Amino acid sequence: MNLILLLDEDFDDDARRRACDAGDAVVVELAGRRFRHVRTVHRAAPGRELAVGRLGGRVGRGVVETLAEEHLTLRVRLDTDPPCKLPLTLLLALPRPKVLRRVLQTVATMGVPRVVLMNAWRVEKSYWRSSALEPAGLLEPLRLGLEQGRDTILPVVETKRLLVPFCRDELAALAAGTRRLLAHPGANAPCPRALDEPVTLALGPEGGFIERELDLFARHGFAAVSLGPRPLRVEQSVPALLARLF
Amino acid sequence: MNLILLLDEDFDDDARRRACDAGDAVVVELAGRRFRHVRTVHRAAPGRELAVGRLGGRVGRGVVETLAEEHLTLRVRLDTDPPCKLPLTLLLALPRPKVLRRVLQTVATMGVPRVVLMNAWRVEKSYWRSSALEPAGLLEPLRLGLEQGRDTILPVVETKRLLVPFCRDELAALAAGTRRLLAHPGANAPCPRALDEPVTLALGPEGGFIERELDLFARHGFAAVSLGPRPLRVEQSVPALLARLF
Repeated sequence: MNLILLLDEDFDDDARRRACDAGDAVVVELAGRRFRHVRTVHRAAPGRELAVGRLGGRVGRGVVETLAEEHLTLRVRLDTDPPCKLPLTLLLALPRPKVLRRVLQTVATMGVPRVVLMNAWRVEKSYWRSSALEPAGLLEPLRLGLEQGRDTILPVVETKRLLVPFCRDELAALAAGTRRLLAHPGANAPCPRALDEPVTLALGPEGGFIERELDLFARHGFAAVSLGPRPLRVEQSVPALLARLF
Repeated sequence: MNLILLLDEDFDDDARRRACDAGDAVVVELAGRRFRHVRTVHRAAPGRELAVGRLGGRVGRGVVETLAEEHLTLRVRLDTDPPCKLPLTLLLALPRPKVLRRVLQTVATMGVPRVVLMNAWRVEKSYWRSSALEPAGLLEPLRLGLEQGRDTILPVVETKRLLVPFCRDELAALAAGTRRLLAHPGANAPCPRALDEPVTLALGPEGGFIERELDLFARHGFAAVSLGPRPLRVEQSVPALLARLF
């Protein structure tokens, strides 16, 4: 946790929340997971300064004022914008729930603003019934990822359970004006580097897209690119692709 | 599992093993994890061709000959060298065991030939007593990683429990003739891209190296570089750094 992320309910009242959003110093109380992290990992004593942000808002510093058995108080002042997002929309074939949670963390940490979880032939149907896709299931790894990456702005996560209608009805508009790439271990073209333009990146399931799906994306202008002859797992290829592309 | 990795004990006798190493077609029997994977994930029937390699040796193809309840036989012919390794030695502050296993998988998948697990101020002492550091504990994630990356050559993994003597007595020789980089979220210089030279890369623990350690590596010619303002977890930064550097 490189940033303590404050939620609406951390503020006693609306006035204090508004004061915080206006950049004034405000005292908040933390308990639970964030309190334990500050105590055991940061080993923070009163007077210690920590990075703080407000979910959906600005970032700044907080000074530990008091430290009790089960909670602490922080005097925070949030006066800086969170880091920029990447100019990227990630179209991700729905991975299994454990992998999804890791990838959502990575996506939030690395600053991807928008993720479309989509179906593909090799996506197991049962994945669509996972609690990882419920609002709370999506929120938890995204929050952890923001805390890791010192960001405050949640990525937008959408689900598209039917791939063909999604491609037919929505993909052209979604990818308009962006460079369209599809990561595929078998592709001949190497993944480009250090791009300075918006990108829509499609990433297949474990085992890859099938031919029909590759054709579908190719018809929408997606160029297949590869990181080399060694196929990566989804949770490895996301950080690898992002670090290569931007 | 993108490659079925054959071990010495998969061969009935030395003659067959030597024949396989000489590039002749040889029949082997698989049971256990690899059998179940071929049956349930590849859904392989007799006649199906699969990628096969020999731990420490060459890669090639295997054709399923028979498929029984608990085992299958494969006729394999290994006639190709495994993919090249990266020109990289990774100096990694020992992560917690669960993360170590993931990073070792990534390292094997992405083709890192040598990993030095070293101590650092922020490495918890208990990590050094983990079973993940025993030979079998190291071997398992490395094998899984090779199977993922279609490689057969195990990375060399060394442990250095004392950082200062390691740097004083061994680091100069180990890093001689290589570009020396230290990945650090706070560094001003961006991580370089697409290098075509051997690299020694030092990567700190969660929370980073402390100042004294940064100085120690700087005195040995390590330049601190960063992937940007968002600190990554170790298991994210390894694929990100490798994809960026090479």
